Amino acid sequence: MEKLYEGKAKIVYTGPEVGTYRVYYKDDATAFNGQKRAQIGGKGVVNNRVSSTLFRYLEAHGVPTHFLGELSEREMLVRQVEIIPLEVIIRNRAAGSFAKRYGVAEGTPLAKPLVEFSLKNDALGDPLIYDDAVLALGLASANELSRIKELALQVNELLKAFFSQRGLEVIDFKLEFGRLPGGTVVLADEISPDTMRLWEVGTGEKMDKDRFRRDLGGVEEAYQEVLRRVTGGPA
Amino acid sequence: MEKLYEGKAKIVYTGPEVGTYRVYYKDDATAFNGQKRAQIGGKGVVNNRVSSTLFRYLEAHGVPTHFLGELSEREMLVRQVEIIPLEVIIRNRAAGSFAKRYGVAEGTPLAKPLVEFSLKNDALGDPLIYDDAVLALGLASANELSRIKELALQVNELLKAFFSQRGLEVIDFKLEFGRLPGGTVVLADEISPDTMRLWEVGTGEKMDKDRFRRDLGGVEEAYQEVLRRVTGGPA
Repeated sequence: MEKLYEGKAKIVYTGPEVGTYRVYYKDDATAFNGQKRAQIGGKGVVNNRVSSTLFRYLEAHGVPTHFLGELSEREMLVRQVEIIPLEVIIRNRAAGSFAKRYGVAEGTPLAKPLVEFSLKNDALGDPLIYDDAVLALGLASANELSRIKELALQVNELLKAFFSQRGLEVIDFKLEFGRLPGGTVVLADEISPDTMRLWEVGTGEKMDKDRFRRDLGGVEEAYQEVLRRVTGGPA
Repeated sequence: MEKLYEGKAKIVYTGPEVGTYRVYYKDDATAFNGQKRAQIGGKGVVNNRVSSTLFRYLEAHGVPTHFLGELSEREMLVRQVEIIPLEVIIRNRAAGSFAKRYGVAEGTPLAKPLVEFSLKNDALGDPLIYDDAVLALGLASANELSRIKELALQVNELLKAFFSQRGLEVIDFKLEFGRLPGGTVVLADEISPDTMRLWEVGTGEKMDKDRFRRDLGGVEEAYQEVLRRVTGGPA
């Protein structure tokens, strides 16, 4: 199968059938737009299995996704989509770039979940973008933006419920969406400890990529623990 | 009269009556969040007279402002308002931070005018902000945001018409809004070559603060020429 694209954490190949891709999850980790790099042992397996489990759960609750199935412990079969070049970030508490950008204490609860957009462009540093600029730059239509926000908030409610039953609080996460050939917008990319902030309920311990970004130690153990809880069912 | 606040380009004093301020326009110029500093001879006079003329024009066309009158060539009398901590930027063409942020060629026309918000906070570098974050941080209410956008677009149409009659194209500009004691939102701050991009129709020559930011020379001459055209009536 032909390699189509190699990103920081995944490789995309042509799939077994027309209109499908095979996605391979690597152990490579990067942070701060590629300035910090390392390997996290077993991360590819965790992210593929966590993402697959979450995509199945979301599909079962009415969210259309690109997910078709797991091919191996590191490989996922997905529908071919045209990725909408936006990073869609859903925030339940101020953390990370939001907390730093606006000078808000990390962990401050937000009265309502926020949906934030960045232009997906590494060379420009994935700059924050707002609805009218998305439309002006032709990145998505008004209908697509509205559908993306609706799906993002729906996914947030579903993920909060899922993780809360597993002793983890969903602080924020990043989604990407794609267009199927007919134009239907579906959830794409991955949902994993690489793309979410998950804090242990009670202790507030970070169980996500921040352990790598911030040199907190126990990175592999945190990824494995998330996998265990995600695949193990409600506590 | 008591000095209440000294900013980069203006000093605010208590006014002659309760509920008023006296604003003094300095020749000091700064750019890049204060990293570049200089004096531009006569700038304070130009900015006070240009702002006063534009505020009178906007008031005459139904836009509520804080303007009460000119006190001297460098001093303006304004209503006391509580400034809403947002920089409201209206864009007709891509330029400056927008062009750089999204990798768009300077001068690219935008199909519709864009209204963009930044959090007014020097220490944070006036970061870009979006509607939901404005609401989440309690910077303005949903009604205020909606009114600010409406007024910003109305001001844009009025300024485009005004400057077009004077051979200048309004590329973008920054507004600030304030609340009167009863809560009414009014246009505040200034409107001058410090806060707008004005390009000569035909040649595209820059007639604004970019001459200072980008070391283009002829800074004082450009400010004087804008004053001449603004106060001289339609060409």
